[in-house]
Amino acid sequence: MLPHLLRIDAAHLVMLAHRSILPAETVARLLSVNRDLRLRSDAGETVFETPASHRGLYLTYENEYIHRLGGEVGGSAHVARSRNDINATVTRMRLRTELLGVLAGCESLSRTLSTQAHAHARTVMSSFTHQQPAQPSTFGHYLTAVLSEFVRGTAWLAASYGTVNRSPMGAAAGGGTSFPIDPHEVARLLGFSAPVLNSADAVGSRDFVIQVLGPLALMGTTLTRLANDLQAWASMAYGFLDWPDDLVSTSSIMPQKRNAFVLEHIRGQAVHPTGALMNALMGLKNTPFTNSVEVSGEVSAHLWPALRGISKAVQLMDLLLQHVRVRPDAMRAFLVHADTTMTAVADHLVARHGLAFRTAHDVVARLVARKTGDAPLTAAEARHGLEALLLEVTSRAFTLDEAELARALEPATCVEASAHGGGPAPASVLAQLAALEDPGLAASLQAWRVEQEDARGQLEQAVTALLTASGFPTP
Amino acid sequence: MLPHLLRIDAAHLVMLAHRSILPAETVARLLSVNRDLRLRSDAGETVFETPASHRGLYLTYENEYIHRLGGEVGGSAHVARSRNDINATVTRMRLRTELLGVLAGCESLSRTLSTQAHAHARTVMSSFTHQQPAQPSTFGHYLTAVLSEFVRGTAWLAASYGTVNRSPMGAAAGGGTSFPIDPHEVARLLGFSAPVLNSADAVGSRDFVIQVLGPLALMGTTLTRLANDLQAWASMAYGFLDWPDDLVSTSSIMPQKRNAFVLEHIRGQAVHPTGALMNALMGLKNTPFTNSVEVSGEVSAHLWPALRGISKAVQLMDLLLQHVRVRPDAMRAFLVHADTTMTAVADHLVARHGLAFRTAHDVVARLVARKTGDAPLTAAEARHGLEALLLEVTSRAFTLDEAELARALEPATCVEASAHGGGPAPASVLAQLAALEDPGLAASLQAWRVEQEDARGQLEQAVTALLTASGFPTP
Amino acid sequence: MLPHLLRIDAAHLVMLAHRSILPAETVARLLSVNRDLRLRSDAGETVFETPASHRGLYLTYENEYIHRLGGEVGGSAHVARSRNDINATVTRMRLRTELLGVLAGCESLSRTLSTQAHAHARTVMSSFTHQQPAQPSTFGHYLTAVLSEFVRGTAWLAASYGTVNRSPMGAAAGGGTSFPIDPHEVARLLGFSAPVLNSADAVGSRDFVIQVLGPLALMGTTLTRLANDLQAWASMAYGFLDWPDDLVSTSSIMPQKRNAFVLEHIRGQAVHPTGALMNALMGLKNTPFTNSVEVSGEVSAHLWPALRGISKAVQLMDLLLQHVRVRPDAMRAFLVHADTTMTAVADHLVARHGLAFRTAHDVVARLVARKTGDAPLTAAEARHGLEALLLEVTSRAFTLDEAELARALEPATCVEASAHGGGPAPASVLAQLAALEDPGLAASLQAWRVEQEDARGQLEQAVTALLTASGFPTP
Amino acid sequence: MLPHLLRIDAAHLVMLAHRSILPAETVARLLSVNRDLRLRSDAGETVFETPASHRGLYLTYENEYIHRLGGEVGGSAHVARSRNDINATVTRMRLRTELLGVLAGCESLSRTLSTQAHAHARTVMSSFTHQQPAQPSTFGHYLTAVLSEFVRGTAWLAASYGTVNRSPMGAAAGGGTSFPIDPHEVARLLGFSAPVLNSADAVGSRDFVIQVLGPLALMGTTLTRLANDLQAWASMAYGFLDWPDDLVSTSSIMPQKRNAFVLEHIRGQAVHPTGALMNALMGLKNTPFTNSVEVSGEVSAHLWPALRGISKAVQLMDLLLQHVRVRPDAMRAFLVHADTTMTAVADHLVARHGLAFRTAHDVVARLVARKTGDAPLTAAEARHGLEALLLEVTSRAFTLDEAELARALEPATCVEASAHGGGPAPASVLAQLAALEDPGLAASLQAWRVEQEDARGQLEQAVTALLTASGFPTP
Repeated sequence: MLPHLLRIDAAHLVMLAHRSILPAETVARLLSVNRDLRLRSDAGETVFETPASHRGLYLTYENEYIHRLGGEVGGSAHVARSRNDINATVTRMRLRTELLGVLAGCESLSRTLSTQAHAHARTVMSSFTHQQPAQPSTFGHYLTAVLSEFVRGTAWLAASYGTVNRSPMGAAAGGGTSFPIDPHEVARLLGFSAPVLNSADAVGSRDFVIQVLGPLALMGTTLTRLANDLQAWASMAYGFLDWPDDLVSTSSIMPQKRNAFVLEHIRGQAVHPTGALMNALMGLKNTPFTNSVEVSGEVSAHLWPALRGISKAVQLMDLLLQHVRVRPDAMRAFLVHADTTMTAVADHLVARHGLAFRTAHDVVARLVARKTGDAPLTAAEARHGLEALLLEVTSRAFTLDEAELARALEPATCVEASAHGGGPAPASVLAQLAALEDPGLAASLQAWRVEQEDARGQLEQAVTALLTASGFPTP
Repeated sequence: MLPHLLRIDAAHLVMLAHRSILPAETVARLLSVNRDLRLRSDAGETVFETPASHRGLYLTYENEYIHRLGGEVGGSAHVARSRNDINATVTRMRLRTELLGVLAGCESLSRTLSTQAHAHARTVMSSFTHQQPAQPSTFGHYLTAVLSEFVRGTAWLAASYGTVNRSPMGAAAGGGTSFPIDPHEVARLLGFSAPVLNSADAVGSRDFVIQVLGPLALMGTTLTRLANDLQAWASMAYGFLDWPDDLVSTSSIMPQKRNAFVLEHIRGQAVHPTGALMNALMGLKNTPFTNSVEVSGEVSAHLWPALRGISKAVQLMDLLLQHVRVRPDAMRAFLVHADTTMTAVADHLVARHGLAFRTAHDVVARLVARKTGDAPLTAAEARHGLEALLLEVTSRAFTLDEAELARALEPATCVEASAHGGGPAPASVLAQLAALEDPGLAASLQAWRVEQEDARGQLEQAVTALLTASGFPTP
Repeated sequence: MLPHLLRIDAAHLVMLAHRSILPAETVARLLSVNRDLRLRSDAGETVFETPASHRGLYLTYENEYIHRLGGEVGGSAHVARSRNDINATVTRMRLRTELLGVLAGCESLSRTLSTQAHAHARTVMSSFTHQQPAQPSTFGHYLTAVLSEFVRGTAWLAASYGTVNRSPMGAAAGGGTSFPIDPHEVARLLGFSAPVLNSADAVGSRDFVIQVLGPLALMGTTLTRLANDLQAWASMAYGFLDWPDDLVSTSSIMPQKRNAFVLEHIRGQAVHPTGALMNALMGLKNTPFTNSVEVSGEVSAHLWPALRGISKAVQLMDLLLQHVRVRPDAMRAFLVHADTTMTAVADHLVARHGLAFRTAHDVVARLVARKTGDAPLTAAEARHGLEALLLEVTSRAFTLDEAELARALEPATCVEASAHGGGPAPASVLAQLAALEDPGLAASLQAWRVEQEDARGQLEQAVTALLTASGFPTP
Repeated sequence: MLPHLLRIDAAHLVMLAHRSILPAETVARLLSVNRDLRLRSDAGETVFETPASHRGLYLTYENEYIHRLGGEVGGSAHVARSRNDINATVTRMRLRTELLGVLAGCESLSRTLSTQAHAHARTVMSSFTHQQPAQPSTFGHYLTAVLSEFVRGTAWLAASYGTVNRSPMGAAAGGGTSFPIDPHEVARLLGFSAPVLNSADAVGSRDFVIQVLGPLALMGTTLTRLANDLQAWASMAYGFLDWPDDLVSTSSIMPQKRNAFVLEHIRGQAVHPTGALMNALMGLKNTPFTNSVEVSGEVSAHLWPALRGISKAVQLMDLLLQHVRVRPDAMRAFLVHADTTMTAVADHLVARHGLAFRTAHDVVARLVARKTGDAPLTAAEARHGLEALLLEVTSRAFTLDEAELARALEPATCVEASAHGGGPAPASVLAQLAALEDPGLAASLQAWRVEQEDARGQLEQAVTALLTASGFPTP
């Protein structure tokens, strides 16, 4: 809290001097105390005893001015501001910093997803629907699907930055002020893009909290879905994935177990923002549209644990995906065993022999139903079976090409053929990944960081200028 | 459902003909049945018995083709598509239509808020914090604050349209297809901006549901906050607002009551999206990232009642604000009675007599504490009281100007003075309202509606061309 | 609505006559209209056009009295009651009926779970933690665990019946009445256990809605956990379970698939009460503690879809569990393959050879790590391996008994041994099931149904007596 | 954590000795280390560095045994137990303690509500519906309504204690054990009522978390409703209530304000359990029914802040209600001004002059509509007005008794008359309060505390006996 408070205070004082609302000399004396407190706080010193609340810190801090400069000068800092606009400002400053951190984490996870999707664009694996093997696909295609949703979630989250990064300073207790302040200068010195326009909105609204928690809650569900699939595929029943020892745990009682328990942490922590979102929405419901403890304090309180939860979940997932060991043989064995190429065989009958889709589907379904034993069909078995069934169903004799059927029955060929409609053909997946590469987010993050740095520099400069002009030594 | 299904079917068939995946003649025969069903459905005829589920409708409908055209032709329509991509497409088509409706309602409410804020830019009223009278403000300033948040909520909602309006067609069951389809043409004919790129994403993701419900939940809380304030101010205790008889209800047992019960409907219905959002987020949690009934059916189911609830709440609020009768006298009487100009008096002491803010605040607080009786202070009383207190506190003699004090004590003058930091001075409020006027949303809504109309026209034309080419009569 | 309204009306009128608040003759005339409307409504006749709201129905219905009996008599029915207490009463009557239905469904599912747990008390299956095979267990032990939680959830739900089944009649608009009514008689005639004591509580509280939705939300999560496991075990990767054809679905595009899509419906519908609960809690937040549309109408609205969702989920789960086909061979093959008996081997070293648990655990973990190939260890391999490792680790020579090791390595023997601490030994599971048999719920359900029937009879009798006394014909 | 862990460890070791699973001598050596750690921990010493997680603490603690007693003895403590059952046990022990604390707070608040309701059984105040004045009532009647709901909520919460207070020990990793342990003895020594019967249930279920959070969420809404009303009535617009200076805050910028900001803290904190409940339900959804980090760690994590939030809200409300200053004059003035006795006048016309309720209601409504000016009607005005209106409406001449009308118009008489249906007549309210006095909760709380104390004593005794028998000195 304190560093934010000191920074807001400095920006406000600089503006008061520039607008001649307080004499430059008075401002310089106040700023020298401010600078002293800041230096001590930066050095890790406990400047004040931690008070019970924001309110408390605020008063303690104001008393320090009065104690050191006397009532006349020390008490003058409070002009044209209030705990209400300061509180709202602190929340936004703190939030934008956390937001930049989470977004950086998301960007990293997106890059990891993309890297692995590239690497596994040809790693043939079954796709699943209703938890049953569906069609031949690739691990890269799956990761690209998840990446698509994760990128949308990240973009949604990033869009909240513009709403968050507006300055409430100048709104005072909610009614603005009769002093001819310059809220734009304060906003600029604090790294905000602009002031909030309406003073009652500035202190009374916390919709930016919802605009952050909504995307976090969504991204949380995306992470649980990914974690759910990874954990299934890492289980002994599938055996598609594994991790190095330091990312799995062993059991205290069952010597043979390898648990990807980190995925369970992710699944658990990723849902924290949903509870926080519920709390924040409920906290807003039926409150007067104005500043209140309920809104300013309680609604915002849910942000921080939610940000922490999602941050941790994103980092853990990033780590797991960077180090995952994929087992293409297990993936392929499962696929072949599961007759997943039957759709391709039906498609072949439609495309090559002009059968209606329903007829082809029927015939292939009967072929599968008549199969005995666990081994997948050979091309020869498929040809004989299908020719017989086609004669039976259509009363026409068909001659199928065994080599073509063999290609339809081969998962890798099927994958190669699924080149349309966003399918898993490697070229298709690479095109999807190219389209998902958006340098925009990284550029925005960088620009936002630079803006923050610039603002810090400008404030520093303005403070030094005022101190120097009044004869205070520069550090 | 059926109209959407018929339209998707027509667009898909047109594309299959254009890409020579099915013969033009076959497509024309299928389209003639499609057109027939559409005309009968548009005429209000019950084309099929309502089946138990989407799945059911889909099969009934496909059987109709087979029944009328035989298995070979009738069964051929299903090529390169699946219930999975069709379901996702229907949900998005239905949602974008509802979304346009809700956005139009929001735009109307924004206009009403703006109109009333303009009309009441000089209607002096107390502002409130912690439910206590705070400072002189205006009803227009309050409405502008609410409008600010509502405009942000609406913009947030409108931003979801781009995510919603992408076509899943071509994804088939989730693995794309080996047929050389053109998903872009299907997207265009159905009014979508583009296809979803990855087929597993197309059928497995429902993040667009969350991107709609999040903003709806937020806007719901804004409406409850506004309704909360309006209901308080319409109560007998305040008496600031009233409505014509047809918008209030009378009690069945208490003859003297006038209840703005509509505000309670708004407060209740406006929170529906929050429950729906929680359900949808919970529905997504720990599901495989693929098509499933849980995700495709259950998650989306929460959308429709939430859209209905918020729509009704927005419309009712619009109606109430259009017809609200404001009582400026009651507002002013309350304000004067509440000593709300004391901040202005303290500010006056700071600005005019160079007092430190804390000192001025202290002195004014003592003045209020010493007051006896309910009547507000006169300028003369204020002058005598303050001069005595200032002497006591600062040990200096001050001479205050009674005329200036009178201006500080007059609510209208105070309001006029609060011209900075987004305050309620009429000029400030008008500037805020001007900044909130964003023709962008109306333009987007109009453009989106035109796009939808154009797409309908293009599909109609393409169907007619194919039918005519194969000798089917045009209607 | 109407049947409830007519019944409340009849009970109230009977009481007014018995307490001489209205003349018996007047009451008889009103009751004859009431009876007529009831008979027509029971016969399926549309007695009134459906009005827009409860409020509307209420007025329509009252007007019918006035229309048929004139203002003096027809208008007298409303004495000592109000829409407020009637609305609260209708909600409670409707809810208690639905509650009895859901509880009957839960009781049936509990019985099915118990039946299957008995049937599979010796069906050896791996238990799982962190989705990895853990120790030998049985399907019956698993089902008993789920049954334990489900029984607790059902008991929690059943406990809400007592809170729901109290009569608000007599509270009028919330302030009771000066007429010397007998709320106990009305309660009894309507099948309530007692009146609500405080009139403001009677019309203003809806905590009974939360007391129903809380347990429903909990039971919903239990169902999703069970459905999650069943779906995994029914997947091709495990192959432990299957269902007859009419309970699984085939794919429209993938001929080889069998989808237990019903489990996904259950997973989706089972979470509906959570959204409803959130809505209801949010609906209550910051509302005045009195009757309001927000509370009486909006809060209760979420109940009905939640009850429907959970009811369907419970019924579907019951159906699936009744017809599930278990494959003990697949379960056993998986178990043997997974080295799950290693805990038993370690326990054997502790119990028989006095090793410290940690030492035994270490030695067995090394044995598993050194294993090559997929086949499970034979007793001979285990003996040789362990003896070598024990010498290495403890520097003591151990001689192990191969027959005993064979028993420890055999899943069925392991299960038999796990007889303590609630383990899966068949005798232990049967004891658990016996303890879970609680005839209490069935008895309560039966008693509650009888109470409802009795109350109907009493009301019928009282109405007939009054009608007969005033010369109206009995039907 | 550590004190719970040490206590569980001691109880488990005592049982192992009593069942001869470990030699008494070995157990004594382990217990002497356990006792040493406990004494140091009780003395506030940091026994171990805080590890990152429970898992970590568990291992550190076990290593301490091995370090001090060697591998053979130190490693033997782990027999027939696991981190899984220990974790579940710690959560339940911690929760039951917190639960007792919250219940004690609730009992205190109930007593305060009851005391104030008694004190204000004759403090006449308007009741409100739809935020409009409704009928004459009393502050005591209002408080009794809130108390009724709060008592139900408390009873619901108290009912969860029985579900929470069951011992999972013996379940080990979820499969029980082959060692002949006595889970009943461990349960008894740890103060649990009984063991959980099924081992998979013991480690895999967290429904007891929901059974606690559900009632907390409900009670939270009750508190927000009460806080909402108190804050409105403490506002300047009503002026019914006030608090001493140390319970209200003054504004930093508005010298005249007195803010009951504590009520906003209550409104904010009271909703924390709802978000926690959402999180916990969502955390359970679609998880395997077994032990997992997601369930055991993440689901339970939401409990502690929720308990803290509600605890604080309950305490603050208790404090506010103990010190509230009620202003009967302001309450009465408001009531008289609001024509709230009109229902009583209508009731009088029905009861005394045999008018139909609707007719009486109509006539009174016209009387109110014709009234000019703000002053309430005198009995004379009412008589003249009503006689004229009755003639007009019924074409019959009525002669009303002015004295009787005066009684109907007097709020205190109205209140006195509302003696039926749970109304506000003082005798009725006192009867309601008497019915709400339930010594059961206090008795249960006391019994539960005694049980906990007894269990501590038994464990202490058993440990001492074992230590003494093996020659360890008693402390």
